[in-house]
Amino acid sequence: MSNIKNARWLVSSYPKDEVTADNFELVYEQISEPRDGEVLIQATSLVISPPLRMAIGTGGITGNRVKLGDLMRGSGQGIVVNSRNPHFKAGDLVAGPFGWQEYAITDGERPFPLEKISPRAGQPITANLHVMGASGATAYVGLYDIAKPKVGDVIVVSAAAGSVGALVCQMAKLSGCQVIGIAGNEKKCRWLRSDLGLSEVINYKTENVGERLRAACPNGIDIYFDNVGGDILDTALGQIAQGARIVLCGATSQYEGDANWHGPANYFNLVYKEATMQGFYIFSYAHRFKDAYRRLGDLIANGELIYNEDVLEGVEQLPDALMRVLSGENFGTQLVKLS
Amino acid sequence: MSNIKNARWLVSSYPKDEVTADNFELVYEQISEPRDGEVLIQATSLVISPPLRMAIGTGGITGNRVKLGDLMRGSGQGIVVNSRNPHFKAGDLVAGPFGWQEYAITDGERPFPLEKISPRAGQPITANLHVMGASGATAYVGLYDIAKPKVGDVIVVSAAAGSVGALVCQMAKLSGCQVIGIAGNEKKCRWLRSDLGLSEVINYKTENVGERLRAACPNGIDIYFDNVGGDILDTALGQIAQGARIVLCGATSQYEGDANWHGPANYFNLVYKEATMQGFYIFSYAHRFKDAYRRLGDLIANGELIYNEDVLEGVEQLPDALMRVLSGENFGTQLVKLS
Repeated sequence: MSNIKNARWLVSSYPKDEVTADNFELVYEQISEPRDGEVLIQATSLVISPPLRMAIGTGGITGNRVKLGDLMRGSGQGIVVNSRNPHFKAGDLVAGPFGWQEYAITDGERPFPLEKISPRAGQPITANLHVMGASGATAYVGLYDIAKPKVGDVIVVSAAAGSVGALVCQMAKLSGCQVIGIAGNEKKCRWLRSDLGLSEVINYKTENVGERLRAACPNGIDIYFDNVGGDILDTALGQIAQGARIVLCGATSQYEGDANWHGPANYFNLVYKEATMQGFYIFSYAHRFKDAYRRLGDLIANGELIYNEDVLEGVEQLPDALMRVLSGENFGTQLVKLS
Repeated sequence: MSNIKNARWLVSSYPKDEVTADNFELVYEQISEPRDGEVLIQATSLVISPPLRMAIGTGGITGNRVKLGDLMRGSGQGIVVNSRNPHFKAGDLVAGPFGWQEYAITDGERPFPLEKISPRAGQPITANLHVMGASGATAYVGLYDIAKPKVGDVIVVSAAAGSVGALVCQMAKLSGCQVIGIAGNEKKCRWLRSDLGLSEVINYKTENVGERLRAACPNGIDIYFDNVGGDILDTALGQIAQGARIVLCGATSQYEGDANWHGPANYFNLVYKEATMQGFYIFSYAHRFKDAYRRLGDLIANGELIYNEDVLEGVEQLPDALMRVLSGENFGTQLVKLS
């Protein structure tokens, strides 16, 4: 063991606007042996989603950004390779916020909590990093608890081919909603039409979103599930129906360029349309996770719910993976397979 | 009757930014006699509130702005001086959207609906133009139905000395909230402190609102009742507490300069704080008006609720009255007494 080096990505500088590979430095360090109470984990996959950008920006919800010279933040799953903690044994499949590195050590709580997970039949080992994890729970809570869809509601979903968006689209369709998806390239738009069966799909990079929305929902938008913020949020707010619910889930368009978030000038339509704009934090809904995973698991088993994994291989790919999700080049949940 | 002229304010041009007297033209026209089914009303008072600016701007909720050369929009009360409608008789006190003129004719529905009203003991004849009318109902519904205050909640109210704001402040205090008022001059701030008994009052023209709010509510804002929009909305959103409710009631800072509404860049705090921003349209809550007026009437009778009328005299004052409410020079509900 002691001859193996741990590849770790440190934050070497903060991006001014767009993240570049220069913001990170790859270092190799000797792996320590776990001390009493600790476990050593070999990371197998990390998941990369746009809000991770805030780890080297505003700091996100906590306001704590990664210090220069510290390990880049990130979550993943791995296998316990050496345990001196009675709750874990070698071979356990575990998940946690390991950071961008191949090996991690924890006592189960510090420096990060560790959770034991089990693979589910019919699903990839990595499912807990998306559909049976944070993305799945977010889609479930955001749709059912916040948006509260009714049969016949017109719902618009931005980043509709994304990790959360694609689940929202499919669940909303099952709830009897008319679903309009917005995405940023033709491959995604095709997939939303053909594989997810959405009747209306808008490519925001080549089409006029406002015009397309006016044509697709002449009576207005009942639910707007926002994953991107910026101009699309503003446009959607300009076309809401009476009593609309705007679910604030993400703001991918805003994570780069931390200083100047783009406020939606059409916010006052919330008054004219007696509408509600609500944000939520998925970890406050832990009591709903069991229901969410049961429902999502059933839908997957029945073939009623599909998802995409976009997998890069090798620890070297981590900065690229982040750049991919921020530019929208990824197709589905962005994973980086490490071992 | 036929020798009396009706003074009427027509819209002669649309303001680019700030309204000026030049946007209106005062004309005198012969009064018509009511035809069968119609009543002739002599307006006694008109009420001027900031959203009226949209009548010559975006058009507000309907999008219909007053056409050039047409009568300026506005609501008031008056006395029936001649009736050929069986539902109204000479001497009836009535209210309706008369427009900016001394005399108006209607069949009770067209060109505007007419409502019979009765003065209430202990209240001015004009009470239905504010505390026992739209402002009172707006404060009541906005606070109780939308914000849903709990004892101990910290509520921040902008335009706190205004027609709606002052009622919200007092009702919230009675509900056991800590009330922080924001206003634009020392006279208003003094009144909020001394007469309304608010512990914290911020003069947004001379003080740093963000700093004062941080000091006054170190644990964040539970309810922000927004009457102004713009920078103050943005600042408040930056300092909300977990589970905050932002009530969108008005946007006085935004009604001038129709093209460029200022979207709140801090809107994403709604995610971090699991907060809700909601607009409402008072006329959807007609079922609550009776309760509202009963409660407001009781509070006034008990001396627990006060309000200000700011009265200008004479039809010539109407454009000035609108400029006053938009600049915040008025102190309380702006009325123009016509006869």
